[in-house]
Amino acid sequence: MKDIHSLLYPKSIAIVGASRDRDKLGRIILDNVLKSGFRGAIYPVNPKAKRIKNLVCYPDLLEIKKTIDLAVIAIPAAFVFDTVKDLTASDVKNVIVISAGYSEIGQDGMMSELKLCTLLQERGISLLGPNCLGIISAGVNLNATFAKNAIRDGNIAFLSQSGALGSAALGWAEETGVGFSHFVSIGNKADLSENDFVKFFISDESVKAIFMYLEDFVDGRGLMELGQKTGKPIVVMKPGISEEAQKALGSHTGSLAQDDLIVSAAMKQGGIIRVDTIENMLNLMQMFSFPKQLKGPRIAIVTNAGGPGVITTDSVIQEGLEIAALSQKTQQALALNLPSSASVHNPVDVLGDARADRYEVALKKVLNDQGVDCVLAILTTQVMTQVKETAEVIAKAARSSRKIIIPVFIGGKGLESGFKVFRENNMSFFRYPHDAVDIIAFLNEHTKEEGHEQHKLKSTLKAKKEKFSKMMSNNYEVSDLVDVERLLREYEIPTLDSFFIQDIAGARKAAKNLKYPLVMKLIHPELLHKTDVNAVRLNIRNESELEEALVSLEKLGLKMGLSHYKLQVQHFVKEAVELIVGVKRDDAQYMEIGGKRILRKQGFGHTLLFGMGGIYTEIYKDVSLRIVPILERDVVGMIAQTKINQVLKGARGQKYDLKAVKKIIRNINQLILDFPQIYELDINPLFVKESGVWAADVKMVVKKYSK
Amino acid sequence: MKDIHSLLYPKSIAIVGASRDRDKLGRIILDNVLKSGFRGAIYPVNPKAKRIKNLVCYPDLLEIKKTIDLAVIAIPAAFVFDTVKDLTASDVKNVIVISAGYSEIGQDGMMSELKLCTLLQERGISLLGPNCLGIISAGVNLNATFAKNAIRDGNIAFLSQSGALGSAALGWAEETGVGFSHFVSIGNKADLSENDFVKFFISDESVKAIFMYLEDFVDGRGLMELGQKTGKPIVVMKPGISEEAQKALGSHTGSLAQDDLIVSAAMKQGGIIRVDTIENMLNLMQMFSFPKQLKGPRIAIVTNAGGPGVITTDSVIQEGLEIAALSQKTQQALALNLPSSASVHNPVDVLGDARADRYEVALKKVLNDQGVDCVLAILTTQVMTQVKETAEVIAKAARSSRKIIIPVFIGGKGLESGFKVFRENNMSFFRYPHDAVDIIAFLNEHTKEEGHEQHKLKSTLKAKKEKFSKMMSNNYEVSDLVDVERLLREYEIPTLDSFFIQDIAGARKAAKNLKYPLVMKLIHPELLHKTDVNAVRLNIRNESELEEALVSLEKLGLKMGLSHYKLQVQHFVKEAVELIVGVKRDDAQYMEIGGKRILRKQGFGHTLLFGMGGIYTEIYKDVSLRIVPILERDVVGMIAQTKINQVLKGARGQKYDLKAVKKIIRNINQLILDFPQIYELDINPLFVKESGVWAADVKMVVKKYSK
Repeated sequence: MKDIHSLLYPKSIAIVGASRDRDKLGRIILDNVLKSGFRGAIYPVNPKAKRIKNLVCYPDLLEIKKTIDLAVIAIPAAFVFDTVKDLTASDVKNVIVISAGYSEIGQDGMMSELKLCTLLQERGISLLGPNCLGIISAGVNLNATFAKNAIRDGNIAFLSQSGALGSAALGWAEETGVGFSHFVSIGNKADLSENDFVKFFISDESVKAIFMYLEDFVDGRGLMELGQKTGKPIVVMKPGISEEAQKALGSHTGSLAQDDLIVSAAMKQGGIIRVDTIENMLNLMQMFSFPKQLKGPRIAIVTNAGGPGVITTDSVIQEGLEIAALSQKTQQALALNLPSSASVHNPVDVLGDARADRYEVALKKVLNDQGVDCVLAILTTQVMTQVKETAEVIAKAARSSRKIIIPVFIGGKGLESGFKVFRENNMSFFRYPHDAVDIIAFLNEHTKEEGHEQHKLKSTLKAKKEKFSKMMSNNYEVSDLVDVERLLREYEIPTLDSFFIQDIAGARKAAKNLKYPLVMKLIHPELLHKTDVNAVRLNIRNESELEEALVSLEKLGLKMGLSHYKLQVQHFVKEAVELIVGVKRDDAQYMEIGGKRILRKQGFGHTLLFGMGGIYTEIYKDVSLRIVPILERDVVGMIAQTKINQVLKGARGQKYDLKAVKKIIRNINQLILDFPQIYELDINPLFVKESGVWAADVKMVVKKYSK
Repeated sequence: MKDIHSLLYPKSIAIVGASRDRDKLGRIILDNVLKSGFRGAIYPVNPKAKRIKNLVCYPDLLEIKKTIDLAVIAIPAAFVFDTVKDLTASDVKNVIVISAGYSEIGQDGMMSELKLCTLLQERGISLLGPNCLGIISAGVNLNATFAKNAIRDGNIAFLSQSGALGSAALGWAEETGVGFSHFVSIGNKADLSENDFVKFFISDESVKAIFMYLEDFVDGRGLMELGQKTGKPIVVMKPGISEEAQKALGSHTGSLAQDDLIVSAAMKQGGIIRVDTIENMLNLMQMFSFPKQLKGPRIAIVTNAGGPGVITTDSVIQEGLEIAALSQKTQQALALNLPSSASVHNPVDVLGDARADRYEVALKKVLNDQGVDCVLAILTTQVMTQVKETAEVIAKAARSSRKIIIPVFIGGKGLESGFKVFRENNMSFFRYPHDAVDIIAFLNEHTKEEGHEQHKLKSTLKAKKEKFSKMMSNNYEVSDLVDVERLLREYEIPTLDSFFIQDIAGARKAAKNLKYPLVMKLIHPELLHKTDVNAVRLNIRNESELEEALVSLEKLGLKMGLSHYKLQVQHFVKEAVELIVGVKRDDAQYMEIGGKRILRKQGFGHTLLFGMGGIYTEIYKDVSLRIVPILERDVVGMIAQTKINQVLKGARGQKYDLKAVKKIIRNINQLILDFPQIYELDINPLFVKESGVWAADVKMVVKKYSK
């Protein structure tokens, strides 16, 4: 583990490029360090100056002759390497390279970056950047960035792969009063990367929530696993969902594309909140910086306007939250205290002429209701409305309750007096119901499920490894299914008995062993969608039909010019639902630079896919995805996430063998854990009936796993 | 058509309830009328005062002894009826009842509302309200509401069914500088309703765009048809999508639930923009109040920050817009004028140290590109950023281009100087890319398609009417399909030949007439999902299987205790795609009040549904909906909207008979136009193969149509 502590809590800091010119980046950084009240040693480095701002200035880092915890380098890229080339870890522990001109500008820059990073790694010196804004660390009163914002102390750790977005967020925080424990501009991530910091933030007590803007993951799977280990909220914004955005990313950093479905699955499994807009990220920062625990999804609405109440109700339902059902007692208490035409159901309508006192009593009663987890207090400006007084009443209610109260004040100028009250009380507030509901939905998503247990098969791994050693030792693309079927049966995954035949004698033998009706398929590696080319004969019920099928498929094989095709005979399963269970491995990616093989990013490893199988799989994409290994709750969750689940549960009258389906998913998970060599495994269709499941069509690829 | 002109452009106005007490609603309205500069005659009405604000005060309306264009009534509901009971149309042309206490409070209020409305209708007096805020009309300098906001003149007509939301929007407009030609608080819609006003706004030249917040439609189909006839943008916010919101609506007005899918289809067909959040509604108001035409969906992004550029790109793609491909010429011009590490592709990155001049040149080049329809100018505050100057450069570019430029300034406090520039230049601006892109997407949606032509069948309607007179004259639920098949064939909709059999002799006869393989079904009105109970025998290939099927289905009928079931035999269509084409009529709704039958709302009429058929129709809901009559572009659009369209077009190798499918949709449309008595018609599945379609299973209900 990297020594992030000495970087974020340095006792001494050197600033290379500190200058007498107030507009130079190095000077801006020095000014920020001084202004922020850093109490450790500060060493400006600049060969052309003796003193800057009353501090002794050093010609180079070695001349300081003390171990420096942190050197911030803000000079043109061309001079950076020479500045650090004679350093050892006893001279400088950490280097931040602010300078741009590295991998973000192309091949040449990539070479310089690699050279710089390799040198520092050999010397045991950590590198943050290059091409970054610097860091802020509230615990040691340090602002070592060139951002000019006044940053408040707080409990949010914020890491940004975009300097611009980082400084925009700092500006926004200045306006809203959100405070940070740390801000890290991570730049090109040549050495230190997000996971190093996340690890540290998890253990740092001053951090209550971790926010990151990332354009790629150095090790997404590792991040997921960190998320699984901590209860601290982690929020990630990661764009690049569309191809066009991937292209744009490619043009401005050296980012690597990542399958977005895998990213979403991994974040979900890691209990990490993934936001999709800057607005949501900032709003969540505000929520987590004044933290109260969201108890659950049951929302109560108190409003002085019916229309916005209805609009908010729609939003609540659309975001998967619930409209709390108020108890009889609460409704009676409201009826006693509100005018007769007020609505005492949820949304509670205190009417257009409500003054602050009416909000006060309504909030009190609603907050006391055990069926309410969170309250939205909606106000529109009407003739009698008391904006400031109502805001004060809401703030008071928030102070005296453990439940979250979110004000939504809709309208114009007149609202500022209310917003001021909320700012003074460190409360999040919104101008539109939709934005508030969005944020509650994110908080609710973070209310993590318990039950991290992983299902375990009684594994006789050693025996299995021996049994399948040949199959697993080679790059293996299956066309002969016999081996795979053996493997699946070992993992208690039933397959349909198959016979591969060459003539009518073989077909008859197959028919003797299998029960009519039968199905006969033409098998060839190039035939992916057999149904589409009519290469499957279903419901063969007697010998004459068997002969017919054989002759017609042989004809088809000839007509299509296929060589070495096979004819497979199985029992025909009627009235089954067709599912898909698939596995694919996301491997690490490497690149060659100057003859060296460089790890660009870790893979996510195996993903497990479940969903609607059969001929429409690719059209309806009714599938869910998880990263292997999955936990028991993932087995349940990934089935529940699909629409085909409704069919399995009996939406069309017939129920299907859900228990067996779950077992298949668990066992495939175990199979992959035992044999990570499996690169791809596709069971489609997996037949399920009222009782029992059968893998009907299987495809498997084995490929060496270089982790 | 109602005489809305005298209501919105009155020459004289009486205010009943004008008072010396400054806090009374009537007095607030009088003050607003005076303050707004209304130049017509103003008559306060109050039996207890002689003069108010230097105006002669009248004891009642009749005493004015002149024809009053508009009487605004703001006295308790209990006294309203008596106030108007002796009026005729030559006394008062229009009445606005501000007073609450009518249908929104329940049964008693509903009775008073009905009584009031009936009286006024009999006298030929129009009624706006009751339970409303009043009206604002810029053309005659009239603010006849009790809203205290200062309203700017403008070209937006805004109608709101929620008074509170109306006044919140007025407050918001005050802050943002949006101006209104008219504001109408429509209240309970006892008499005048939204469509009366929309008709008028369409013809009123001062109105450039029509905005409405509606909680229900008095006549949604009528609104759709108005939308089809005008080129003016109409924007509707209509909540109540969720059941919970429907409930809340029920509790605060007397609104009626409406199938939300129908609402969306009708709005789309009417070229009406439906917004889902208050924020989007207000932002669109701003866009339309400073109108430029959006030329198309190709967006260019100019940014000083890569991250936000990528994020915006994602949003653009997700909202169905396009990232413009910049021409070679533009890219070269950008390369000549920007630093070498700038990105000259779209998104154009002018780099973090860009000052205003760099934005200026980039905007100019990008706006000149013929492949660009709209430009997003993104700014984040960085060290060198010139907020105000850049805003001025953007405003200048906007003034000199016919293309829409939208600034998105991300960050905190420092941005206000830029926002001020945009406000002064009447420009819409945003703080987050996502919001800006949302709005462009809405504008793009409004770029209406041409081609309003309707497909016409050569109709020999008279002959058809005679032929099917018996079937169409009764309430008719089909269990015998023979009649329906005759009807469908008349409309060139092929059906599978059917035989209804009772014994093996009948079965054999059917087999003689149809070709093997056959399918045999057990038909009974109570059997909706035949496949689920195994009441369908597929792929019957010879006589012995025919016998088997007959015996087993008879057994099933007995076992299920069905009486009068039928056995249907058809040819078995193999390897077809299963579609659904359905029609359902949305009828008007009435209610009884005091023995009178009152129209509550018009229906939308017939809706036509198309999509994936077969056993998963209800699970995957891959369907599209239109209101009958459909136009040719709807035929294309409703197929394109579904995923099954990909299969029809050949996503799985095989192409299907799209031409025949389109013909079926057109002909069903014609059938419904000819026979509006049809209440429901369901063809599921409609088989389609490479060549040809067949209606396999049909259900039809005929019900008298009381329009």
